[in-house]
Amino acid sequence: MSTTNLRNSVIFPIGERLESKNFNGSAWLKMLAPSGSACPIGNVTFEPGCRNSWHKHAGGQILLVTGGRGYYQEWGKPAQELHAGDVVDIPADMKHWHGAAKDSWFVHLAVEVNPEKGPATWLEPVSDEDYNKLK
Amino acid sequence: MSTTNLRNSVIFPIGERLESKNFNGSAWLKMLAPSGSACPIGNVTFEPGCRNSWHKHAGGQILLVTGGRGYYQEWGKPAQELHAGDVVDIPADMKHWHGAAKDSWFVHLAVEVNPEKGPATWLEPVSDEDYNKLK
Repeated sequence: MSTTNLRNSVIFPIGERLESKNFNGSAWLKMLAPSGSACPIGNVTFEPGCRNSWHKHAGGQILLVTGGRGYYQEWGKPAQELHAGDVVDIPADMKHWHGAAKDSWFVHLAVEVNPEKGPATWLEPVSDEDYNKLK
Repeated sequence: MSTTNLRNSVIFPIGERLESKNFNGSAWLKMLAPSGSACPIGNVTFEPGCRNSWHKHAGGQILLVTGGRGYYQEWGKPAQELHAGDVVDIPADMKHWHGAAKDSWFVHLAVEVNPEKGPATWLEPVSDEDYNKLK
């Protein structure tokens, strides 16, 4: 699936390719409400197989899934499969990751909660061994 | 268009019919993050012709349009037509209304900004005369 096809299948703008060591593979980010505002909102698009590293948000985050198939996993729990229409309320300081399934693009809005509490803390990557167990 | 058809055309759950004198016609609300939380998020669905009354948010609000065709208007300015993928950043204390076009359902996420600043203040309805000028 090309990014052109993807662009036709989702709602909000795809934005720019993220250049980040905290993502395994290609992802795109369009801020819909800016960082530094009272309520930053990003539209995040992951190519198949792409996920972010384990991380924590000081104030929490809400994911609103708008397309594709992917996962959210909290440390010590099984990964949870996500589809369009799913909502994830990520508690403050919860170690977690999110990203696409191996065979699907994945798109979600990410709403930063209590941004004044500080930035995300990035930790180790999700291992291929753990990721490859997911279906 | 029945609500069953609509349900198949949008992403997030439609929720319950709003019983509110502040909406002209039928609208539905599903809270995706609850009122009283740090970042309340509602999915709001308007039937064709339905709009809310003029109102203000003490902390502001962000609209993320996921489907249909509708309008946002600030007091003293022309109404702005909205479609899926549009984002509206409503400043705190800005008198405004939003709702569907005459011939289209309209669906948006509504993110409450700075909810600790207080609730919305509801004002007069949008007159039929003003609404009927819109195309």
